[in-house]
Amino acid sequence: MGSSSDMRYFNWLVLLVQLLGVVSVVITAVWMGHFQGGFAWTEDPAREFAYHPLFMVIGMIFLYADGILAYRVFRNDRKLYIKILHASMHVAALIFASIGLKAVFDSHNLPKEPLPNLYSLHSWLGLLVVIGFGLQWVIGFASFLLPWAGMTLRTMYMPYHTFWGVTLLILATATALMGITEKALFGKPANGYDKHSREGTLINCLGLILVIFTGVVVYLVTKPEYKRQPAPDEEHVPLDN
Amino acid sequence: MGSSSDMRYFNWLVLLVQLLGVVSVVITAVWMGHFQGGFAWTEDPAREFAYHPLFMVIGMIFLYADGILAYRVFRNDRKLYIKILHASMHVAALIFASIGLKAVFDSHNLPKEPLPNLYSLHSWLGLLVVIGFGLQWVIGFASFLLPWAGMTLRTMYMPYHTFWGVTLLILATATALMGITEKALFGKPANGYDKHSREGTLINCLGLILVIFTGVVVYLVTKPEYKRQPAPDEEHVPLDN
Repeated sequence: MGSSSDMRYFNWLVLLVQLLGVVSVVITAVWMGHFQGGFAWTEDPAREFAYHPLFMVIGMIFLYADGILAYRVFRNDRKLYIKILHASMHVAALIFASIGLKAVFDSHNLPKEPLPNLYSLHSWLGLLVVIGFGLQWVIGFASFLLPWAGMTLRTMYMPYHTFWGVTLLILATATALMGITEKALFGKPANGYDKHSREGTLINCLGLILVIFTGVVVYLVTKPEYKRQPAPDEEHVPLDN
Repeated sequence: MGSSSDMRYFNWLVLLVQLLGVVSVVITAVWMGHFQGGFAWTEDPAREFAYHPLFMVIGMIFLYADGILAYRVFRNDRKLYIKILHASMHVAALIFASIGLKAVFDSHNLPKEPLPNLYSLHSWLGLLVVIGFGLQWVIGFASFLLPWAGMTLRTMYMPYHTFWGVTLLILATATALMGITEKALFGKPANGYDKHSREGTLINCLGLILVIFTGVVVYLVTKPEYKRQPAPDEEHVPLDN
């Protein structure tokens, strides 16, 4: 089952992605937990907001990306198992994203003086990304896991599935950068963002780490040498890329 | 010289990119010229700022992208001419970006009460993108236009040149989205951003148009069928992708 491609650096880059992913989740948790007053649920809507950045980073960036990478990392396992893993990780991503969205709407709607919803570019693009991700999941499940879809349809849809998968991951990261920018500016001047405060430097680093994370993931999944080679007894269409 | 690839939709997508590019420049000009009080030079630093978004969108997004597309659009012309066109459009992009950067630094430094510089994620990522773009230009010029570099070096460097070219274009767009977010929030509540004002809706649409613009450009330059086919009498290495 071994691949004849040039796999140099592959394992190191996957390891780097995991490290950057964990670090970005930890920084988001420290930002919300330490600098922004901690986590709460509906009894304290201002602190319920804390789950929004944390769960969106876990779901729409870390789990989303690792679900894509499953095809590269488990390259020698049976195709069907990888498909199920890929789909399951993205269900988990959707669950985190849904709770993350509930947290931000609650934090706007539950206070005695509610805040307006869905006016910012962050909210517009973010909602489009989550809806697009959900649609991709449904169409992907119907095409690649349900038995009715034939090879012709699968082969036709595959390039669009991968293009939109990578595109929506990049847009999720761009949305996170806008979210960081919003939260940083809402907190001024108390958070000292315009005075190069520790909190400000930390969240700028979070933004750069998310950019590097997504950049390495996109590199890993688009580099032709890293593509999974179908085993000789598998389907003869390139469903793995 | 004709290509045997499937070029369906190519011309329409290039036309769409040009339309979206012009529309985004016009919206930026209307935003700054009509809603934000117009343009001025160093005698009025607050209005000198207006050149920052306008020139960054023209240089780092529109001209940057069209310079990349030159290889696809002028696919049947002599390679050297396209190279010179590509390099020249990116010099123009760098000139616009430099004036755009001067405008924002002036708008921070020239007022009687100067504003702090380089504290936001937008400024960090934006500066990295412009520096990265300048480095790409210098390394690209030295490798592909100066005669000393051999074919081996050119073939080795090419995938990195294209990867970084596309990556930096995407990051330039992400930086623009953060810039739109910053300017929108700085202007609250006067601009009515949180009340779905006309200005707010306009700049959210600007952000979405920039996303679609960059998405279509990346699709055009990464789709294998749209790649330029080298003419039989050209170099035998795939320098054109």
